[in-house]
Amino acid sequence: MDLEQLLPRNIQELKPYVAGKTISEVKKEYRLNRISKLASNENRLGCSPVVKDAVLRALQQIQDYPDPIAGELRKKIADKHGVKEEEVILAAGSESIISILCKTFFKNGENAVTADATFVGFFVQAGVRGINLKKVPVTSDYRFDIDTILDTVDENTKMIYIANPNNPTGTYINKNEYGKLLKGLPEHVLLVMDEAYFEYARSVSDYPNALENRPENVIVLRTFSKAYGLAGFRIGYGFADERLITEMLKTKLTFEPTTTAQFAAFAAMDDQDFIERSVETVKKGINRITGFFDSHHIRYADSISNSVLMILESEEEAVEFTQRMLESGVILRRVNAFGLPNCIRITIGTDDEMSHFEESFREIYSIQKS
Amino acid sequence: MDLEQLLPRNIQELKPYVAGKTISEVKKEYRLNRISKLASNENRLGCSPVVKDAVLRALQQIQDYPDPIAGELRKKIADKHGVKEEEVILAAGSESIISILCKTFFKNGENAVTADATFVGFFVQAGVRGINLKKVPVTSDYRFDIDTILDTVDENTKMIYIANPNNPTGTYINKNEYGKLLKGLPEHVLLVMDEAYFEYARSVSDYPNALENRPENVIVLRTFSKAYGLAGFRIGYGFADERLITEMLKTKLTFEPTTTAQFAAFAAMDDQDFIERSVETVKKGINRITGFFDSHHIRYADSISNSVLMILESEEEAVEFTQRMLESGVILRRVNAFGLPNCIRITIGTDDEMSHFEESFREIYSIQKS
Repeated sequence: MDLEQLLPRNIQELKPYVAGKTISEVKKEYRLNRISKLASNENRLGCSPVVKDAVLRALQQIQDYPDPIAGELRKKIADKHGVKEEEVILAAGSESIISILCKTFFKNGENAVTADATFVGFFVQAGVRGINLKKVPVTSDYRFDIDTILDTVDENTKMIYIANPNNPTGTYINKNEYGKLLKGLPEHVLLVMDEAYFEYARSVSDYPNALENRPENVIVLRTFSKAYGLAGFRIGYGFADERLITEMLKTKLTFEPTTTAQFAAFAAMDDQDFIERSVETVKKGINRITGFFDSHHIRYADSISNSVLMILESEEEAVEFTQRMLESGVILRRVNAFGLPNCIRITIGTDDEMSHFEESFREIYSIQKS
Repeated sequence: MDLEQLLPRNIQELKPYVAGKTISEVKKEYRLNRISKLASNENRLGCSPVVKDAVLRALQQIQDYPDPIAGELRKKIADKHGVKEEEVILAAGSESIISILCKTFFKNGENAVTADATFVGFFVQAGVRGINLKKVPVTSDYRFDIDTILDTVDENTKMIYIANPNNPTGTYINKNEYGKLLKGLPEHVLLVMDEAYFEYARSVSDYPNALENRPENVIVLRTFSKAYGLAGFRIGYGFADERLITEMLKTKLTFEPTTTAQFAAFAAMDDQDFIERSVETVKKGINRITGFFDSHHIRYADSISNSVLMILESEEEAVEFTQRMLESGVILRRVNAFGLPNCIRITIGTDDEMSHFEESFREIYSIQKS
């Protein structure tokens, strides 16, 4: 079998995914009891307790295929946001919607413009579709550079991808920048605003809620994986002009998201207290960790998300710090695949988890820096 | 917005998915209490009772992303089938694995060869990827025509897709035909054997279990959606040479299948009594419905699957029969999208559901045929 002959070039060039260690593997390998998983921007409070009963109801029809358009949930989301059902798509997480965007809209040879330090899921899905990706360097404060992004658009550009707040940096484009982006957006270009971390960001006064200012070529993504704490179910949603949604529905897998995901998300939407509690926990945690970093002269990016980007001097330091933290039971995420080899993304956890982080940090640096 | 300008031609040419009516919609619209859903080849016995506890365990970590390679389940499947873990891929149903195959292996301009009356999911995913599909007519007894399929392969053929047993016909290629297929298979062509209905077929003496005779360019698909009754969870699996699996893992969504799906499937594998009971129910049901058809001079295809293809005189008759059955609470599946406009696919249900079918059938035809 000649793989080089068999495979398209863009697939050959993709790197295989390397799974991180699971909690139980870390426990076993390093003989630890206390583990703080601050690696994947998940909700460390879990999810709403209402989810359990919803899932038990879902099990009563689990032998049947899911509702392909997730009709009841779609209506609930449309009503909540004051849009038509036909402007909403549900799929197996934002990553799946990004895959759908790549499959639906790109002709061979077209390109997409985004930052060089943003969600790796977009890089991967663009690679799978063989899309020419134009990555614009982030600014010195780790933010999307809107002017340069607009300058980079050409006649073959099909899409601009902005994560707002951005992942892994936690930074955001403000209302002024969003306005500039809309003003400079050519008609033939789709603008994707990935608002996976919307719930954490919405109270910031100059954060632009793209759903409230959405021309026909703007697509807004949201998810149940972050503040709602439903990552294991795989369910996200998107808003767009209904003509675009009609096309996207053609390329999504017929039966995503799953029945359990649909039932869980439907129920979870009713427990906004859980969302507020989750957001509050994260805001306190951000203040705590940035205060801690300030007092220890560690650089970081200003975050309105549920994680903080820790900026180290070099890739080597990032590798070593991540490894040392792992050995003390704190699982962090290096973000080299996101374009930032010298940085580490730290998910904000519970008070106890943040204490674990601080204690381990002190241990490591008292050895290294004393 | 100029959609014709915006979209690739293959996407424009795809038909939007039209969802069938849900059980509750049918109940409401026709004021019915008794509904028999024999439309989607689901397991009418439900799923194994062990699934519930497994799902409750899964909920304890539902805020976290799923294990990307479904490691524990992958190992269990590999061990059961005597292959290496690296030869197994898990994904969100067979449809997702078919999508992965289309994304991973096809270069622009390459084609796939299959039957004109087979699983619509392959037609759709090939269309999404813009693959040139060469559809070979089925034989007069609704079977894959292996000789003509081999003759249709050319230097641009990347894949042959065979569903065995076939969906929607329930027919199969036998050991002799499978041997012929392997013998005639050029080295540059991948052969996909979709065995979604394997559990129903395996006891048939000349049914070829492709997993037991699998050269390096053969890929075998199985699923938990049919006999296991887990369709709502979306989980299927595939076996292939580990070099092929490595490439397929690059294009699958990072976190499919879901955590609940992984836990449910892991537990369900231990309840083989449930599978045997399900298969037994279907075998009895096939005998019953084919006897019924014989006595009413209705044509059908010989099935070793969990459904029977009913062959009517015309598309009009199929449309009308399906509608009349729906009005009496029996939901059936027209298979025009599968290439058979004059046929109806009838999932084998419980005794009570098969009685419902027979009673409604008699009512309809005593009016039409008397």
